[in-house]
Amino acid sequence: MAADGQEIEALVALMARLPGLGPRSARRAVLHLLKKRRQLMEPLAEALRNAAESVRECSLCGNLTAADPCALCRNPARATGEICVVEDVGGLWAMERTGGFRGRYHVLGGLLSALDRIGPEELRLPRLLARVSGEDVREVILALPATVDGQTTAHYIADLLSGSGAAVTTLAQGVPMGGDLDYLDDGTITAALRARRRL
Amino acid sequence: MAADGQEIEALVALMARLPGLGPRSARRAVLHLLKKRRQLMEPLAEALRNAAESVRECSLCGNLTAADPCALCRNPARATGEICVVEDVGGLWAMERTGGFRGRYHVLGGLLSALDRIGPEELRLPRLLARVSGEDVREVILALPATVDGQTTAHYIADLLSGSGAAVTTLAQGVPMGGDLDYLDDGTITAALRARRRL
Repeated sequence: MAADGQEIEALVALMARLPGLGPRSARRAVLHLLKKRRQLMEPLAEALRNAAESVRECSLCGNLTAADPCALCRNPARATGEICVVEDVGGLWAMERTGGFRGRYHVLGGLLSALDRIGPEELRLPRLLARVSGEDVREVILALPATVDGQTTAHYIADLLSGSGAAVTTLAQGVPMGGDLDYLDDGTITAALRARRRL
Repeated sequence: MAADGQEIEALVALMARLPGLGPRSARRAVLHLLKKRRQLMEPLAEALRNAAESVRECSLCGNLTAADPCALCRNPARATGEICVVEDVGGLWAMERTGGFRGRYHVLGGLLSALDRIGPEELRLPRLLARVSGEDVREVILALPATVDGQTTAHYIADLLSGSGAAVTTLAQGVPMGGDLDYLDDGTITAALRARRRL
């Protein structure tokens, strides 16, 4: 980095803190931004400021939104009696991209973790319980990661909702689309074998 | 992506235009930014705005700088009589990181390219010639990429400066540090063989 260019160094240091960007790619990104000042750099600064000011959590489901409640919670067509529980907004976005789920969501904001000392009170669990009691919920679909913490959280939620009358289901585990057995881990193969179905 | 979240979608779309970030990593970056609003998102918006406003090209060497001439051109200790010619500011930064060069720079702003129709008038070449005539320059070191365009540009500059009295040199080509012959291309091995030296 050049000896002056305090502004550039500060910018590179901040960019390098984004996930997926190291110092090298942060420098490349900053050079690209400085070349595309009007088309990219200034709009990006503006979009960051806008989003930082206006985006908040939906008070119902925890989704990120500029209008509370979020568009998904406001949409009456989404009142299907199904709530999909996800770890974070990234999970919600991934589900929405599939277009396969037409109900509402509940964003936990994390997973139970003994190691990271995250207990039920750190997650959006009381609100889930309130929604399942208050709204007309038939089914709670757990779309949580297939990790130890994800599965611990799934079982905790199943217990929590056992008296609620809503069915608690979870995403199927198995061989991913296009998955080659040779490249899959043993746990996935074992789970897929156990959940095998008749053709 | 959620149905509302216009602010978020606009931000993701802009982030995805950075080199090294695709749609997926742009979404991850935006979620990370929204989690670190005070510590990262707002400072980044501010740093982008600052740099977009204040950073310009050094009128002498073409380096990016908030103060013209840049700190390298202002520093009298850098008046070593050596000018290192680089394609772009990324090349300048890479040279500076090594700490091995103590002279000044000249940023071409590109390479001659018949394919992309980039001729001498598109590059910072007249200014290089003026500097070599005007300043007390003993040596012009060409640190250009080892590509067809890089080498074409190098030979063009060597011709351009042939009457100037300054020596024109170029970075050595050869086996990179830690390079395994088995993984090197034939061109590099041939160049390293031709430039072999006595131990």
